[in-house]
Amino acid sequence: MNANYKACLEAGFNCLEACNICFHACLKEEHPEKLTKSIELTRECADFCSLAIAAMQRSSIFVKDICGVCANICELCGNECKKHDHEHCQKCAEICFQCAEECRKLSA
Amino acid sequence: MNANYKACLEAGFNCLEACNICFHACLKEEHPEKLTKSIELTRECADFCSLAIAAMQRSSIFVKDICGVCANICELCGNECKKHDHEHCQKCAEICFQCAEECRKLSA
Amino acid sequence: MNANYKACLEAGFNCLEACNICFHACLKEEHPEKLTKSIELTRECADFCSLAIAAMQRSSIFVKDICGVCANICELCGNECKKHDHEHCQKCAEICFQCAEECRKLSA
Amino acid sequence: MNANYKACLEAGFNCLEACNICFHACLKEEHPEKLTKSIELTRECADFCSLAIAAMQRSSIFVKDICGVCANICELCGNECKKHDHEHCQKCAEICFQCAEECRKLSA
Repeated sequence: MNANYKACLEAGFNCLEACNICFHACLKEEHPEKLTKSIELTRECADFCSLAIAAMQRSSIFVKDICGVCANICELCGNECKKHDHEHCQKCAEICFQCAEECRKLSA
Repeated sequence: MNANYKACLEAGFNCLEACNICFHACLKEEHPEKLTKSIELTRECADFCSLAIAAMQRSSIFVKDICGVCANICELCGNECKKHDHEHCQKCAEICFQCAEECRKLSA
Repeated sequence: MNANYKACLEAGFNCLEACNICFHACLKEEHPEKLTKSIELTRECADFCSLAIAAMQRSSIFVKDICGVCANICELCGNECKKHDHEHCQKCAEICFQCAEECRKLSA
Repeated sequence: MNANYKACLEAGFNCLEACNICFHACLKEEHPEKLTKSIELTRECADFCSLAIAAMQRSSIFVKDICGVCANICELCGNECKKHDHEHCQKCAEICFQCAEECRKLSA
């Protein structure tokens, strides 16, 4: 596997995990009605990160294109999650921004 | 592709679509806080149906095992969705039960 | 769900199926060593179509971006498959090009 | 997230990566025609591990069922890959068996 993918792969794994954890935790919060955008975007972000991870692991020739879209999704998800004070949302936001940054580098 | 899979594949496609539509519609309802279990299960059911569809299309030797689990997930998702009066929940429940039935046949 | 997605969703379902069938059939051919690019690309195309289908069904705000990448993947997969005379390859190519066209429209 | 999932999650991540790398490397070998079963099973195993990972991360109530099937897929994939001397096949086999063992524990 391309050694240049290492940092992005790790960021992708972290983002997949943070998004799935945040998704589930949002649904268990006292006021999930305030978190519907986070619920929507953490699902979207997790699903796309999962695809991006597989693309890197298989040395897909579409890694650049895929990481370009992934960066946009991670960024939007991070922007939404950082609005909410729950620890899982704040952590998810931070990790989404890291993944967006790594994806941006690979897509350049 | 195995002709015996035809009915189950069609049920799986319908279930994937109904679950994704219901997931999104639940998040847009006035009281999503009453629908958190549906939101959780429609995601789970859509993701698993997607995998089951691919397994059938590729004539996986694990079709029986996969459809066995899929039937359980579809059934639980249907049981949850049928508790809610929204049209998308009622429709989703009906389609989940059809998919559960077809998956059960293939897993027998 | 957005009615404009109907044609692309149907093309996506057909492409997912054609790619998964072609992937499996290529592995069973007498000379799979001549089909390694098709095997690689039909997997890639099936996986991406699966994600694009879910994005449309959930009215994702990233449908345009996702369909833009999907069109490129479908086109490359079609170009590769049409080089091979096997019926499943020729059929897959035709369906990939249809999907590429519908994705291109949505991403415009 | 359930702390009991930690070892299985890590094994799942490793297995997803080893299978995707092995899949791609098999297609680039001089004699891919001898590796068609590995190609088929590493895809199947990677896709199922990906789903199992997401299920654990979201604390799905189907984790036991999903890990039960995952253990069978990992084991079969490992049995196939260990037949081949390529380093990526041997490594993949070893990691598949570890994942099968962890999945088996969780499904018990």
